[in-house]
Amino acid sequence: MDLYAGKINRLIEELSSLPGIGTKSAGRLAFYLINEPEDRVKRFTDAILDARANIHYCRECYTLTDEEVCPICSNPRRDHGTIMVVENTRDLAAYEKTDKYEGVYHVLHGAISPMLGIGPGDIKLKELMHRLAGDVQEVIIATNSSLEGETTAMYLSKLIKPTGIRCSRIASGVPVGGDLENIDEVTLLRALEGRTEL
Amino acid sequence: MDLYAGKINRLIEELSSLPGIGTKSAGRLAFYLINEPEDRVKRFTDAILDARANIHYCRECYTLTDEEVCPICSNPRRDHGTIMVVENTRDLAAYEKTDKYEGVYHVLHGAISPMLGIGPGDIKLKELMHRLAGDVQEVIIATNSSLEGETTAMYLSKLIKPTGIRCSRIASGVPVGGDLENIDEVTLLRALEGRTEL
Repeated sequence: MDLYAGKINRLIEELSSLPGIGTKSAGRLAFYLINEPEDRVKRFTDAILDARANIHYCRECYTLTDEEVCPICSNPRRDHGTIMVVENTRDLAAYEKTDKYEGVYHVLHGAISPMLGIGPGDIKLKELMHRLAGDVQEVIIATNSSLEGETTAMYLSKLIKPTGIRCSRIASGVPVGGDLENIDEVTLLRALEGRTEL
Repeated sequence: MDLYAGKINRLIEELSSLPGIGTKSAGRLAFYLINEPEDRVKRFTDAILDARANIHYCRECYTLTDEEVCPICSNPRRDHGTIMVVENTRDLAAYEKTDKYEGVYHVLHGAISPMLGIGPGDIKLKELMHRLAGDVQEVIIATNSSLEGETTAMYLSKLIKPTGIRCSRIASGVPVGGDLENIDEVTLLRALEGRTEL
């Protein structure tokens, strides 16, 4: 039997289809929303619909933006000759938070994954190669340090090499502040391989 | 500086104001929603608005329902002379899931908490006392086994005693399948106090 009124059940179902939200959290969220003031709930759903309707890819770097060209690409003080390639907009934001990187970005929206059937044609690779026809000095590959990220980095470096443009990969190793005993062996070996002279 | 487009930031802010959703989860949810098909997102926000607009208290037991009287209160096969008092609709649903309880409910929508400034007048106690004027044989107090739940149970039992209606409290003890070594001392002592003869 249905435990709640139909409309509550429907809401719980919708909420629990979100990533990382189980049935229990969905129930808690549903009752929270039902008990909030009507205008607050409206503001919430408006924010969702507004973002969904007005967010699209930047014409240059393919990050998600509500302008035609994102604020980074349209900033003349950024170094447009250096392109950092990331898997998604959240990775871009992670580097922006450092406040140190002065180049621009290219967002692939995914990574090559033979397991999931995601090939080079399914991510914004063609678009990147198109940008490289312009005045670009360096491409920094900052895809994740996962199997998919590494595969994508490898594939990408092979595409870029013939163009003569410098191509680099962000370092992989022990995180700052990381305690060696808590770090997995693959990372430890990576850190060893990537050691630099002092 | 703002890491994302204004509309994304606004959505993340709204999402992270939900209970149990931190900034990281909010970011993940925001990008998930932005990338979902527009009609799917519309269905999601409609479910929220529809539930918010059409869910209200049952006239009898004050559970949340989309009908005037909830399906439990309007079911003639339930025992309307036995009322189980719970703190909220989710607690009601937990007992309904057992499929064994045949009485009806009364939902308080909270519990007395001097710490939070929630007094007897802030929960549906008056409404319960009003129901007790009818033909009621027993009130089963099933508020939570927390400080607030126990305070409410105590207060309630003192109100009910003079009416001559039987008043009981659900048992508190070791959960079924619970491993003694993982159970807190208060529960262990409760289980000891509440021991029954074999």
